[in-house]
Amino acid sequence: MMKEKLVLAYSGGLDTSVSIPWIKDHYGYDVIAMCVDVGEGKDLEAVQSKAVQVGAIKSYNIDAKERFANEFIAPALKANALYEGKYPLASALSRPLISQLLVEVAASEGAVAVAHGCTGKGNDQVRFEVSIHALAPDVKVVAPVREWGFTRDDEIRYAHEHGVPIPVDLDNPFSIDANLWGRAIECGVLEDPWQAAPEAAFEWTVAAEAAPDEAETVVIGFEQGVPVSLDGQPLALAELVAQLNGICGKHGVGRIDHVENRLVGIKSREVYESPAARVLISAHQELEHLTLTREVLQYKMGLELEYSKLIYNGLWFSPLKAAFDAFIDSTQAHVTGEVRVKLYKGTAQVTGRQSAYSLYRHDLATYTTGDSFDHMAAVGFISLWGLPTTVHAALHADSEAAPKLEGLSVSVAELPVKEGTVV
Amino acid sequence: MMKEKLVLAYSGGLDTSVSIPWIKDHYGYDVIAMCVDVGEGKDLEAVQSKAVQVGAIKSYNIDAKERFANEFIAPALKANALYEGKYPLASALSRPLISQLLVEVAASEGAVAVAHGCTGKGNDQVRFEVSIHALAPDVKVVAPVREWGFTRDDEIRYAHEHGVPIPVDLDNPFSIDANLWGRAIECGVLEDPWQAAPEAAFEWTVAAEAAPDEAETVVIGFEQGVPVSLDGQPLALAELVAQLNGICGKHGVGRIDHVENRLVGIKSREVYESPAARVLISAHQELEHLTLTREVLQYKMGLELEYSKLIYNGLWFSPLKAAFDAFIDSTQAHVTGEVRVKLYKGTAQVTGRQSAYSLYRHDLATYTTGDSFDHMAAVGFISLWGLPTTVHAALHADSEAAPKLEGLSVSVAELPVKEGTVV
Amino acid sequence: MMKEKLVLAYSGGLDTSVSIPWIKDHYGYDVIAMCVDVGEGKDLEAVQSKAVQVGAIKSYNIDAKERFANEFIAPALKANALYEGKYPLASALSRPLISQLLVEVAASEGAVAVAHGCTGKGNDQVRFEVSIHALAPDVKVVAPVREWGFTRDDEIRYAHEHGVPIPVDLDNPFSIDANLWGRAIECGVLEDPWQAAPEAAFEWTVAAEAAPDEAETVVIGFEQGVPVSLDGQPLALAELVAQLNGICGKHGVGRIDHVENRLVGIKSREVYESPAARVLISAHQELEHLTLTREVLQYKMGLELEYSKLIYNGLWFSPLKAAFDAFIDSTQAHVTGEVRVKLYKGTAQVTGRQSAYSLYRHDLATYTTGDSFDHMAAVGFISLWGLPTTVHAALHADSEAAPKLEGLSVSVAELPVKEGTVV
Amino acid sequence: MMKEKLVLAYSGGLDTSVSIPWIKDHYGYDVIAMCVDVGEGKDLEAVQSKAVQVGAIKSYNIDAKERFANEFIAPALKANALYEGKYPLASALSRPLISQLLVEVAASEGAVAVAHGCTGKGNDQVRFEVSIHALAPDVKVVAPVREWGFTRDDEIRYAHEHGVPIPVDLDNPFSIDANLWGRAIECGVLEDPWQAAPEAAFEWTVAAEAAPDEAETVVIGFEQGVPVSLDGQPLALAELVAQLNGICGKHGVGRIDHVENRLVGIKSREVYESPAARVLISAHQELEHLTLTREVLQYKMGLELEYSKLIYNGLWFSPLKAAFDAFIDSTQAHVTGEVRVKLYKGTAQVTGRQSAYSLYRHDLATYTTGDSFDHMAAVGFISLWGLPTTVHAALHADSEAAPKLEGLSVSVAELPVKEGTVV
Repeated sequence: MMKEKLVLAYSGGLDTSVSIPWIKDHYGYDVIAMCVDVGEGKDLEAVQSKAVQVGAIKSYNIDAKERFANEFIAPALKANALYEGKYPLASALSRPLISQLLVEVAASEGAVAVAHGCTGKGNDQVRFEVSIHALAPDVKVVAPVREWGFTRDDEIRYAHEHGVPIPVDLDNPFSIDANLWGRAIECGVLEDPWQAAPEAAFEWTVAAEAAPDEAETVVIGFEQGVPVSLDGQPLALAELVAQLNGICGKHGVGRIDHVENRLVGIKSREVYESPAARVLISAHQELEHLTLTREVLQYKMGLELEYSKLIYNGLWFSPLKAAFDAFIDSTQAHVTGEVRVKLYKGTAQVTGRQSAYSLYRHDLATYTTGDSFDHMAAVGFISLWGLPTTVHAALHADSEAAPKLEGLSVSVAELPVKEGTVV
Repeated sequence: MMKEKLVLAYSGGLDTSVSIPWIKDHYGYDVIAMCVDVGEGKDLEAVQSKAVQVGAIKSYNIDAKERFANEFIAPALKANALYEGKYPLASALSRPLISQLLVEVAASEGAVAVAHGCTGKGNDQVRFEVSIHALAPDVKVVAPVREWGFTRDDEIRYAHEHGVPIPVDLDNPFSIDANLWGRAIECGVLEDPWQAAPEAAFEWTVAAEAAPDEAETVVIGFEQGVPVSLDGQPLALAELVAQLNGICGKHGVGRIDHVENRLVGIKSREVYESPAARVLISAHQELEHLTLTREVLQYKMGLELEYSKLIYNGLWFSPLKAAFDAFIDSTQAHVTGEVRVKLYKGTAQVTGRQSAYSLYRHDLATYTTGDSFDHMAAVGFISLWGLPTTVHAALHADSEAAPKLEGLSVSVAELPVKEGTVV
Repeated sequence: MMKEKLVLAYSGGLDTSVSIPWIKDHYGYDVIAMCVDVGEGKDLEAVQSKAVQVGAIKSYNIDAKERFANEFIAPALKANALYEGKYPLASALSRPLISQLLVEVAASEGAVAVAHGCTGKGNDQVRFEVSIHALAPDVKVVAPVREWGFTRDDEIRYAHEHGVPIPVDLDNPFSIDANLWGRAIECGVLEDPWQAAPEAAFEWTVAAEAAPDEAETVVIGFEQGVPVSLDGQPLALAELVAQLNGICGKHGVGRIDHVENRLVGIKSREVYESPAARVLISAHQELEHLTLTREVLQYKMGLELEYSKLIYNGLWFSPLKAAFDAFIDSTQAHVTGEVRVKLYKGTAQVTGRQSAYSLYRHDLATYTTGDSFDHMAAVGFISLWGLPTTVHAALHADSEAAPKLEGLSVSVAELPVKEGTVV
Repeated sequence: MMKEKLVLAYSGGLDTSVSIPWIKDHYGYDVIAMCVDVGEGKDLEAVQSKAVQVGAIKSYNIDAKERFANEFIAPALKANALYEGKYPLASALSRPLISQLLVEVAASEGAVAVAHGCTGKGNDQVRFEVSIHALAPDVKVVAPVREWGFTRDDEIRYAHEHGVPIPVDLDNPFSIDANLWGRAIECGVLEDPWQAAPEAAFEWTVAAEAAPDEAETVVIGFEQGVPVSLDGQPLALAELVAQLNGICGKHGVGRIDHVENRLVGIKSREVYESPAARVLISAHQELEHLTLTREVLQYKMGLELEYSKLIYNGLWFSPLKAAFDAFIDSTQAHVTGEVRVKLYKGTAQVTGRQSAYSLYRHDLATYTTGDSFDHMAAVGFISLWGLPTTVHAALHADSEAAPKLEGLSVSVAELPVKEGTVV
């Protein structure tokens, strides 16, 4: 009899490798492995082969970098998405994409189940499962690592028994996840939030001290909120992000150290390297400051907080996400122009921005000749702007003690100049 | 007959100096000058004397640094106040304080009017006038610079005619305002937002390239959200901010370049130096990430946006400000602990944070032995967390085309390993 | 020489009638009057003729009811727009439409200026002028009533001198503005917010006591958030609203009594009759409760507050309005279905709602047989949902006194039943 | 050996009665029953006795009406708390109180566990468990009804076997929860959201048709946001709410019909009777409209949405709730005055409001003599208020087609009056 099939998101690591025989044993499925290239920079051909070696009936190797950049990074960038003001959501963005691919491969293969390698205390399990069910409400989801209850020793023993090779870097003190939008580092000494992250944790960025002594300047071109060129050279987004990761990382730009609130209710200390994300978000914000009206910019900042939470919390494929994107896309129509960023020893400073759609008006802003602003308009404006406060103050004036120059050091001069402390 | 009196906020510059005779001429008031030390670092005794020389009947010199730090900076820091995500509100914080002092001196002196030296296109006129009327609804406000309609040449001629000395730095291309919380630079080449700010604009910070080659680490101690010590040494807030401006400025930390939306409806390009503000806000945020619950932290981020706008827009002395402060003070009860910040060539990186009230729980966060988190709780959590999305997806499943591996480069391996592009 | 032309929004009342000769006198324009039918129910042909009689060179009579319904009411209804939770924004919606028509007629006629009849203390002047300049930044706006400085007696004298007939209802104690979406009543005894509005103020609604003794039920059909049928009969929106105003008004439904905050900084007491708006917004909300996910519904409620303020404050033709509409339209895709409303003596109670896109799932909600909800999922959910609070509580447990049954009346029974007060 | 003790929140119904022997059997605890009077109006002495009869070792009867009113209803009323704009949170408010009492009785009795009678699909289990753990992180919580897995028949069989009497109203088609702030009705025909709620569902309110033919007017006095008098008679809040439930219910006021989003992810149809809550919230809002500044009122409306969600979602005893209360209490300092409400056949219409702290200023609002508003201030205000929009419009003017009078019915009159359709 034909066995039912399951598609497993496969990384090549110990957990997902052990999952292959374990799923066969415990669920009876034929396992199809799926390796996805979202820009981590790993050799996925070897990973692909390994899956078959440890028991997968088939192994997919999918280059999803362009889809990741265009359909996941671009919307997040237009939203300046930074969870809790700091985390550019790198892993959080790849989970819905991998979920989408699991569902697509499952549909292609006629599989009835999918699996991921997450534990029970992280955010990624939520992102996978909510995304998968949003796309395929009836598909079954298996989470072997959460279910099997193995200690690390149990797992190694099981691997030995089932011919799963033990990775040479098993003692790596850090747990890593990486894609085009950033690299997340957890565990080990990082679990003490008072300890500085050691250099060994970083791969994409040099220490600021090790960065070149010469600053480097890049000019990023945007069209409708999306980066389209680097120093004048048109580039597809995935390539632009990859190049920028290299350039900025070389200057030590993009390290993030964060104690963050997970959806599952705990705080965790996370360290990230996100060179391109860090710089592109800053540059994009600057261009928005130039091209969006005050009302749009300031409302959008509040919406961005919610957008970032929504992505972090796994609701990428949800109606609220679609509505947020509709709002944001409406605001990006004229976010077109160039931003100049100076990279130097860990800093990335925007030093200029320009746009054909700039709402900055020199004739209104200047304090010199050419000023076309009506200064007396301010008189009426202030009067009405402050009126609610003034009415309130007039009513409640009696209820507050008259102000005094209490507790201040005051000197008073008069003609002929003499001094004395008043209070 | 006794003339009525007016109190003028006096800086010693050309505009407020010319205002003294102009107010006497046009309004007939006796002018009392008021110089306030909010940490700009200028010689206010000379300024105080100058006021009398150019015609003030009296000249106050008030050291308000402590009041500024404790009553204006501290609340803003607890709110992580950054207008439009960038500007720490330095000038915006001093305006309500100076307004308060104008009202206090006016009350002491029996003056019926006060005056400020703002033009008609900035934010400061609004902050002064709304603050003054909130504290003294009946006091008259005079704004000579906005009213007189002088060109620069007119003004110089008027100064000559009335014995007002012309400052030697009249040709300074920049317009400056400074206090403990930062230094604002406008005008000149800065009016082109594509032009990088020249080194000549900066006084408090060196260029990153000119900063020391050795990093420096500072540990900032907080109690209930307010900085109380530097490297273990207890300091009053005003002194702590002043010292930190020095330390951080020396490392090139604290430059901000912003195209901002003024309350009066225009965009302007502003450059700031806020070394202490930059570092203290980052450090304070980190300590909050450690000690606030997720719900408090995430809601407070939205409230902070509004708080910053309110201060920027001049509503310091308003009931909404009081309500915001009540909220914020409630959240700061346990924001007590230390934050370590590394300063190096323009960067200020938080490398550690600790608190007796830390809500980070190693036993819940760790992936190694000692893990006390219930992994299977996640199963139920995910099921209910994703339920609204799943119900929506189940209902609308038919309305969307089945997903396909479209537009992707896919390779498939099987045993024996063979490859083929599927889609 | 050909005179320049101005287009005046003309109501036929004394103010706009006097404006015609006044504009000619003071500005020298030829005046083109424009009467717009937005569903007030007035005889606009007579108004149109009157304009010419008092000096307009031309008089337009434009039936804009359909455009008003489809392009102004519909978006507001999809946003459940109620300023400060109470006012359906009737006048606030017609102002941008009339502004748009002024600009269109001015373009057709080659006019260089437009005029409105607002005073200087209301919201409508802001709505007109901001809308007009958003559509035609260069057109000149004249506001005769704000500019002329007439007392009522001056105005009547001027009317007599210029052959402007004095309306017979000049002594009407109320100031009225009406359109399809509602009727606003101001002035007279309403200026005392403690006084109940007298029956004489109302025209569209009977007093609840005078309403029929029989309840009436209507079923409103929606498609994508817009009403399309009444009791099963398909109707264009303008017609549906008009009919519903009649039906609901007859039952005394739709009176609103509000002390509201004007954009110009004052509070005013406003009374409205909005029978259709009141019922359609309630019905629309109910259908949203049935068809939107929790996340969309709850976020949208906050956005609606801002949307309502934006419209009230005159920013209809602004990029933020466009972005809001993009968000809202995205949410309305499945707001399709029927809502049953019972009208009786001033009440409008929704008694049922149904939709092919209902997200209410009987199998999940029921407490009886057929329950498909996994009850044990809640255990894990609660554990993680409450975790941040629990961690906080565990840390701070010592800091709070142990709770006691203080100040309560308590009796305790034991076997054999005996009683005693414990605390 | 002494058994460990558990305190059970006991209602006297079948579920909590069966829980007593079941807990003894399955957990081995001695059960202490706790009946709490939060104003449901039931005979709690009989309930108290029944607990002992079915096996509790002790039975508490606690009158918590005053604590409920002062510490739970009052804060919610000051926040105008209505979940999803409709539900006054009656049950949601009593759950944290009962949790608090469970913890207090457990502390008094030295009990190690507490229990509630909720199923696994409602909100109340979350509210109980999160509240209990916030107050006593180490206490064990038992949820027999969620755990036992009985069908209704199983439960009746178990009751017979353990001497638990079967209530006579077991066939009541509705599930009810009630307290001073409202009565919730679920189940039965209400599970079809298209079906109108039958009269049999209601106990506290008559049908509008059955209400008196005479309207009744009540005047509610507030101090600092809390009701303190009814028609001039000072009353404690619990008593005031109770009386108002009677008065308003008699007029058919307070029925709510809602499809709401539960925290556990499903939609449910709920019917409520909340006569006093409905009227007090409306009255309180009106007094706020009179006494709060625009800025406070409009910001508070957004905060209220979050406050209501937080209570609904069980986070009463959490730091965010405390911070919200600090904000709200700050705003209530002057919410003191009287509101007049007219009750008639299901309607409750506010007809007047007054306050010594009213910010409504007749001299600013009036259109007649005595107007002290500066009309020309509006000119400057409008100019700056609309400036961002105007700048945007001027820049993008070319990108939009010139507007035309398209699709409109237009007639044009000229002298001598002639007509023609223009477009």
